[in-house]
Formats: sequence, C-alpha cells, structure tokens
Amino acid sequence: MRQLPEPARAALTLAPVLHALGDPVRLELVRRASVKPESTCSALADGMDVPLSTLTNHWRIMREAGLISMSVDGRHRRIRLRADDLRDRFPGLLDPILRLAADESPDGGAVGS
Amino acid sequence: MRQLPEPARAALTLAPVLHALGDPVRLELVRRASVKPESTCSALADGMDVPLSTLTNHWRIMREAGLISMSVDGRHRRIRLRADDLRDRFPGLLDPILRLAADESPDGGAVGS
Repeated sequence: MRQLPEPARAALTLAPVLHALGDPVRLELVRRASVKPESTCSALADGMDVPLSTLTNHWRIMREAGLISMSVDGRHRRIRLRADDLRDRFPGLLDPILRLAADESPDGGAVGS
Repeated sequence: MRQLPEPARAALTLAPVLHALGDPVRLELVRRASVKPESTCSALADGMDVPLSTLTNHWRIMREAGLISMSVDGRHRRIRLRADDLRDRFPGLLDPILRLAADESPDGGAVGS
C-alpha cells in the first residue's frame, strides 16, 4: 500500500484541524473512521448523499490537516484516523469532539449496525 | 446597548462552532475574548495585521455560529465569549481548545501585557 502525503505529527496545528472538523460531512466521516479503523473511503461514506467529487475534496482537506492517513490499496483508498497523533499534539481535544459528534449523528454511535 | 442577533443556546451545533474556531485569526480572537471579557472588537484585534473588512467578517461568522455575543455600545461593538452556552451545549470542548490555542498563541496566555 502506498500512503498519500500527510503532515508529520509535530507539524500539526490547531486551526486547520478544527477547520477540517468544522463541516457536518467531515465530522461524520471522522466519527465513522474512529469506530471503523482501516475502512475504505466508500464504506465510510456509505449512505451519505454527497457527490464523489465533494467527498474527494473532504478527504483531501482532512488528510492535509492531519486528521487522517490515506493509503492506496489497489482500487481502494483506506482511511485511518490519526488518533494517536491528534491525542499527542492536542491533548483533550479529540475525545470530546468524537463524543459530541456521536451525540449529534443520525447514526448515533452505531455506524453500520 | 443593542445586542446583535445570535442563535439560542439550544440551536448551537458542533460543526459550525468548530468551523468558526477553525481559522487562526478567529481562534486567537476567541482566546483573547476568553481572557478579556466585554472588550471591544478593536481592543481584541489590537496588533493583528488583518484588514477591518476581514475582521468584520470573522466576527459575523463567530456570532452566527454562537461563539460570541456582540453588542452595539455607542460607536463600539463589545464582544463576549458565550462560554456558559458553549460549556452547556458542548461539555468538555471549550476549555481544551482555549488551552491549546494559548499554547500556540504568539502572545501565550498573556494578552495585552
């Protein structure tokens, strides 16, 4: 698998991370990625009524901000939330956001069930 | 003082709040507002190299997302961070963000000193 470019942990800064989280679609994708590690882009976006080109842009914003890692696996792209990097750089930030996003999510905490 | 329109506490949602925080200028303004209650717009933006029209737009985004209250006080506009509303609607969110923003701020935690 080839990994797409992403910022190093030490280069992560707060505003771009909050910006990347500050969209309902991206927030839901991050929440799903947090409960389904190493999923494909298409599996994570399942059931969301969002054009593919928009999703591609969302994944890029999240990758460039350092929220996710993206790997090319044959015809698939696999997503991994960079939870360890985010918790290390921004202690106390990720978990309340994931919890609050789950509270607001139409899926609640039960993606794919 | 006349208060400009803002969303009610119960209407606040997470993604717009994160979006409003997801810009380096807005994040710094929010951090300053958190340590200088009831300041004017111009006092909070003191020393920031940002055009007035851009600042006006930033304040509007923050007010519409529910981050701040803005009151017209004669020729001044006074800003108040809606910390109680944010802590009520999004428990655990505001304080880590303010702490992390202070860590990244050029002013550190000591605005105006």
